[in-house]
Amino acid sequence: MSIRVGIVGISGFGGGEAMRLIASHPSFELVYAAGEGSAGSRLVDRFPGIPAKLAGLVIEKWDPATLPKLDLLFASLPTGTSAEALARVPGHVKIVDIGGDHRYVEGWAYGLADVWPSQIEGRSRVANPGCFPAATLTALAPLLADKLIEPGNIVIDAKTGISGAGRGGADSRFGYAESNENLVPYGLLKHVHMPEMAETIERLSGGSAAGLVFTPHLVPMTRGLLATIYCRGRATTDQCLDAARRFYAGRAFVRVTDRPPQTKWATGSNLAFVSYAADPERNLVIAMGVVDNLGKGAAGQAVQNANLICGLPETAGLDGVPVWP
Amino acid sequence: MSIRVGIVGISGFGGGEAMRLIASHPSFELVYAAGEGSAGSRLVDRFPGIPAKLAGLVIEKWDPATLPKLDLLFASLPTGTSAEALARVPGHVKIVDIGGDHRYVEGWAYGLADVWPSQIEGRSRVANPGCFPAATLTALAPLLADKLIEPGNIVIDAKTGISGAGRGGADSRFGYAESNENLVPYGLLKHVHMPEMAETIERLSGGSAAGLVFTPHLVPMTRGLLATIYCRGRATTDQCLDAARRFYAGRAFVRVTDRPPQTKWATGSNLAFVSYAADPERNLVIAMGVVDNLGKGAAGQAVQNANLICGLPETAGLDGVPVWP
Amino acid sequence: MSIRVGIVGISGFGGGEAMRLIASHPSFELVYAAGEGSAGSRLVDRFPGIPAKLAGLVIEKWDPATLPKLDLLFASLPTGTSAEALARVPGHVKIVDIGGDHRYVEGWAYGLADVWPSQIEGRSRVANPGCFPAATLTALAPLLADKLIEPGNIVIDAKTGISGAGRGGADSRFGYAESNENLVPYGLLKHVHMPEMAETIERLSGGSAAGLVFTPHLVPMTRGLLATIYCRGRATTDQCLDAARRFYAGRAFVRVTDRPPQTKWATGSNLAFVSYAADPERNLVIAMGVVDNLGKGAAGQAVQNANLICGLPETAGLDGVPVWP
Amino acid sequence: MSIRVGIVGISGFGGGEAMRLIASHPSFELVYAAGEGSAGSRLVDRFPGIPAKLAGLVIEKWDPATLPKLDLLFASLPTGTSAEALARVPGHVKIVDIGGDHRYVEGWAYGLADVWPSQIEGRSRVANPGCFPAATLTALAPLLADKLIEPGNIVIDAKTGISGAGRGGADSRFGYAESNENLVPYGLLKHVHMPEMAETIERLSGGSAAGLVFTPHLVPMTRGLLATIYCRGRATTDQCLDAARRFYAGRAFVRVTDRPPQTKWATGSNLAFVSYAADPERNLVIAMGVVDNLGKGAAGQAVQNANLICGLPETAGLDGVPVWP
Repeated sequence: MSIRVGIVGISGFGGGEAMRLIASHPSFELVYAAGEGSAGSRLVDRFPGIPAKLAGLVIEKWDPATLPKLDLLFASLPTGTSAEALARVPGHVKIVDIGGDHRYVEGWAYGLADVWPSQIEGRSRVANPGCFPAATLTALAPLLADKLIEPGNIVIDAKTGISGAGRGGADSRFGYAESNENLVPYGLLKHVHMPEMAETIERLSGGSAAGLVFTPHLVPMTRGLLATIYCRGRATTDQCLDAARRFYAGRAFVRVTDRPPQTKWATGSNLAFVSYAADPERNLVIAMGVVDNLGKGAAGQAVQNANLICGLPETAGLDGVPVWP
Repeated sequence: MSIRVGIVGISGFGGGEAMRLIASHPSFELVYAAGEGSAGSRLVDRFPGIPAKLAGLVIEKWDPATLPKLDLLFASLPTGTSAEALARVPGHVKIVDIGGDHRYVEGWAYGLADVWPSQIEGRSRVANPGCFPAATLTALAPLLADKLIEPGNIVIDAKTGISGAGRGGADSRFGYAESNENLVPYGLLKHVHMPEMAETIERLSGGSAAGLVFTPHLVPMTRGLLATIYCRGRATTDQCLDAARRFYAGRAFVRVTDRPPQTKWATGSNLAFVSYAADPERNLVIAMGVVDNLGKGAAGQAVQNANLICGLPETAGLDGVPVWP
Repeated sequence: MSIRVGIVGISGFGGGEAMRLIASHPSFELVYAAGEGSAGSRLVDRFPGIPAKLAGLVIEKWDPATLPKLDLLFASLPTGTSAEALARVPGHVKIVDIGGDHRYVEGWAYGLADVWPSQIEGRSRVANPGCFPAATLTALAPLLADKLIEPGNIVIDAKTGISGAGRGGADSRFGYAESNENLVPYGLLKHVHMPEMAETIERLSGGSAAGLVFTPHLVPMTRGLLATIYCRGRATTDQCLDAARRFYAGRAFVRVTDRPPQTKWATGSNLAFVSYAADPERNLVIAMGVVDNLGKGAAGQAVQNANLICGLPETAGLDGVPVWP
Repeated sequence: MSIRVGIVGISGFGGGEAMRLIASHPSFELVYAAGEGSAGSRLVDRFPGIPAKLAGLVIEKWDPATLPKLDLLFASLPTGTSAEALARVPGHVKIVDIGGDHRYVEGWAYGLADVWPSQIEGRSRVANPGCFPAATLTALAPLLADKLIEPGNIVIDAKTGISGAGRGGADSRFGYAESNENLVPYGLLKHVHMPEMAETIERLSGGSAAGLVFTPHLVPMTRGLLATIYCRGRATTDQCLDAARRFYAGRAFVRVTDRPPQTKWATGSNLAFVSYAADPERNLVIAMGVVDNLGKGAAGQAVQNANLICGLPETAGLDGVPVWP
C-alpha cells in the first residue's frame, strides 16, 4: 500500500528531516514538495544525497488549489502562517502540522504520540508538539500521572541545538561565527511553547500548572535538546524511574535510563530518553528529557503521528538507530 | 533468510557504526559482539539507543576458539592486530576486515566496492579500504580508466573529521579542548594508507604511481572526509564529469556533481560524492571525493562488501538518507 | 617592580591560562613552572606561542623544598591534592590556589574579588572561587545584599564549555568524538562547588541557603560558562538591574546588561556579565551570570586576586578585550 | 604620544578585531568608527565587552567629507568598495586597507610586514595582504629567497575558519546549521587572492609563478588558517628549516617549528607558524603556514603595518599570547 504524501515547507529543517524519513518509509511515497524560497528547483539540488527515486521532484510554490492527489500532508511553515496556508486543503487529506499554529485548536489532535496515542489514532488533523514540549512532557507525564510531583511551579531549563531555532531569513543572528562557541539564553519569561506545556500538564495531572517557568538556551551544536526540569515532590529517584518504566512499557520510542541522558544518544532518531534524580527531603524532583530536536522534536514525531492516523504500525520508517559518534 | 553476524572491535567507532547499520539490515542478525575494553558490559549500556532486540547482547572478550555459530564477521581492530586475531577464525565464516592489515594480502579481496564489485562477489575474505583511499580512489578511478590523467605525481590533500583518527587510548591528543577549533596536518610524507592507494592507482591505470604525495589533516568535526586531489592531465572539466558519470552509471552509491562536494552531503550514509575542476592549459585536473569517514570510509563500505559476498542486493540495509543539517 | 611568580600545575588548562595572563602582566615575571605530566619539557614545546622571553623555561617536577626565590605562586592542581602540595611552601610566598581545596579554610581568603575586594587586600593566601561559583555569586550578590531575593531554595542551572571539566587523565570521557555535538548533565544533586556557594550566599544575605539546587551541564564548546539562576523574590527586573549597577559601580570587571548575556561576550577576558528577568506576580527572579570559565572562572580571577594581595592596580594585566568572534 | 585612529567597516570581523587590538594599544586612541549596517548604534551595544573608555563611541555612517581629526585609518570594507570609499580621505591621514582593493596598486605598499618591513616603513598607504597570502607567503618567502624551490607550479591547498569568509549579507550560506560539521572546498581555479600571491612569489624569487594553483576550503571553526603548499625543489627538510630560521631571525612574529603547525597555536595572536617537510628524491618540498585569519591574516598584520608606518615599535599592542585551549 502506498500513501501519497506531500510536504509544504520543504526548505526548512523540519521539512527536510520529514523528507529524509519519508524517503525510507515503507508505505509513504513523496509525490509533492512545496517551499517558498526554493520553488522551481529540483529536490536533488537542495538535498544532493536524496534517493534517486526522488531526485527529479521539483519544488512547487504552495497553492492548495492546485495540489496533486494526496492522502497525507506534512506542514513545516513559519509560526503564524500555517493556519491560513492549510485552511483550504481538501478535507480528505490528512494533515500533520509540525508548526505551532494548531496546537490545542479545536478539531486538531495534540500529537504527543508516546503519551496518548489513542487520542491520535483515527483522527485526520494532528498538531505536532513543539520541540521543547516534546522533551519536557515526555519526561513529566509519568510523574504527573502518578501524582509524584505537583503540577504547579515547575521550572524548565531547556537547551537546544541551533537547528531548533529555524533556518531564519536575512538574519545573521544564527551566522556561524556569531553562534559557534557561544551559549545564549533567550525567550525568558515568555515563549511560544509555554501554553501547550501548561495545557498538557493540566490535562495529565488534573491540577493547575500555575507558576510554570521556562527558559530556553541555544547551544553550539546542530541537533539535540535537553530539558532539565525542577519539580516539587516527595518521591524518590526509584519511584520516578519505576513510574516511567510502567508508563512507557511497550512504547517503542521512550527509553528510561538510570543515568543522566546525553543529547547525542538520540541524534538522528525518533527516540526520547528520560531520567530522574530526586531528593525527597528537599521536596525536589529533577526530571530530564532528551530528544533530537528535529527527530522527536519535530519530523520524527510527525511521522509517528502520521503512522497513527494512517493506521500503520507506529514504528514504520522510524527504526533508524541513533547516529554515533 | 537471516545471516548470523558478529563484530569484533565493537568499542571503536568503526565497529559501532557497523552495528548501527547491521541493526537495520533486512538480512543480517547480530548475534555476537566482542571488544577488548568493554568485555562484560551489555551493548545497551555502551549504545543506549540501540534497538530493543539487541539491548541484552553482552560484549564478549574476543576468542576465536569459542565463537558462536556465525556466517559473517566484521572486524574493526587497531592496526597491526587483526592479522593475528582473525587467523584462527573458521574458514566457513566470511570476514570483512575494516582495519588495514589485509589490504592487498593474498587471499583477500580489496573491497573497493563501487569500482570493481565483480572482484568481490563470491569471495569470502574482504579487506575494506581505508577511509582516505575510499574517497580518493572513488574520485580517481574514472580518470585513470579513461586515461584522462597521469597515474604519477598525484598530490592528495585530505581532510577528515576526528572520528577518523580512532578512539585512541589513554591519550589526550584527541581530547575535546585540544582538538576543538583546531586544524592539524599530520602523517606528512608517510601514512599507512599510501601503499593501497599506490597499488590501486597502478591496477586501474596500468601505469606507475611514482611520486604519489598524501597529506592528511584533522578537522574539528566528528564525521566527514574530503580528498582534494591534484593531477596532471589535459582533460577538460566536462570530460572528467562525463567519464565519471559513465564509470558509475548504475552504481547506487556514487554521485557525480557539477559543484564542489561538501562533506556533510554524505554524513550518515554510504554515499560518495565526486567532482572535478580542470584547466587543460595548465595540465591540471583537480578531483574531489567526499565520504562519511565512518560510512563509505569504513562501516558503510564494509556492509556493502558484505552484501556482495553474501549474494544480497548491494544496497541492502544501506539506503539511509544522509542526515542533514 | 618585578614580582617573581611561579605556577604549579602548568599542564592543566587553568595553569596554562594563568601563564598567558602572567606573560603580559606589567609587574609579574614568570620564573618557575611545575607540572607532573610535563616535567622536563620546555614551556615552548607545550605552548608554542608563548613569548620568546619564556620559551626556554623548563617545566620542573613540583618540590616545595627546592623552589627558587618566589614572591607569588599560583596553584592549579587536581582537586584533593593542593592542600598537601602547598603545605610546605615557605610562608613569605603569597599563594593563590585556583583549585578547590582551600575554599573557606581558615587562613585563606575566599577570592570573590568583584564582591568583597577589601577582604582580600593585604592577605597572603587566597582560595580562588570555582568557575560555577564565580558566575553564580557575581550574579546573586547584589540581590542578596539588597534582600531582593530569598537566600533559600535557589535553583542554579549551569552550563560550561568543556575546558571547565579539566584536562582529565587516561579518560576518553572528554574525547572529541564523544563530546562534540553533545550536551551532558552531570553531578546532579551533589557537586563540589555547592558548599562554597551555600556559604557565600549565607554570608551575603545573613540568611539560610537551605534548599540550594545546582545542576551543571557540559556544552560542546571550549570556553564559556552561563549560570541561569531561579530565585524567589518579588522584585522587578528594573529593581534587580539597578541593584546590580549600584553594587558594581566602579568595579572594573562586572558588566550589567539589559539583555540576556551570551557566553562569548566574555571569552578570553576577565569580565563577568550579569542580567536579570523578574516576574513579581510569580515571586520569580531569574538571574544570569556569564564568565569565561578559564577567565573569571579561574585564571583571570586568580590574577585579579594576586593584584589585590600584591597591592597592585586591580586591573593590571587584565585589560584584554574579549576575543570575538 | 597618542595617535588618533579611525576604523571604517567596524561591523565586519576584520574591523571588530582591529578595534580589539587598538583598544589595548599603548599609542593608538580610537576616536572614530564607521559602518554601514550599524550606523547610529553605540559601540558597546555591538561589542558588549569593549573597554569602558570606548563604550560611548557611536558608530557613524561613513562620509570621508566629515571625518574628525584623524592620523590613521583602518579600512575593512567589502571587496570592490574601498577604492571609492577611500579615494577622498585627506592625504595626511595614513591608511591601512585590510580589504583587497589596493594590493599592488601604485602608491600603496603591499604590507607583508614580516617579509619586507623596510618597504613599508615611511609609507603612508598600506594594502594589507589577504589572509591566505599572509600564511602562504610567510611560509614560502625563505625558500624562494634561497632558491630552494622553483617559483612555478606551486600548489596551495588552504583551509580557513569561517570568520575568514566574512560576515556576509542576507545569506544563509554561512548559517550555523549549514556550516557546522561541514567542510567545503570553494573558489577552485580562480580566487581573488591569486594575483597578489603570484606577484609576490615573482618578486621574491625573480622567477615566474606560472602554474600557480590555489584551492581554499571552509572549515567548521571560527578562526584559524593553514596553507599546505606543495612545491618542486631538491632541498632537504633541514635546509628549509634553516633557511626559515635565518630569514626570520629577529622578526618578532614568525615561529619556525620542527613539527607540523596547528592552527590553534596562533589563535588570538599576530603570530605565524611555519614548518617544512621535504623529500629531495621526489623533488618535493611541502611548506606549511599557519595564522589566525583575523590576526596575521587581517587585523593583526594591519596593526603591525600601522606600527611600521607610524614609526612605532613593531610589536606595540601585538604582544598578546595565543588563547589556548
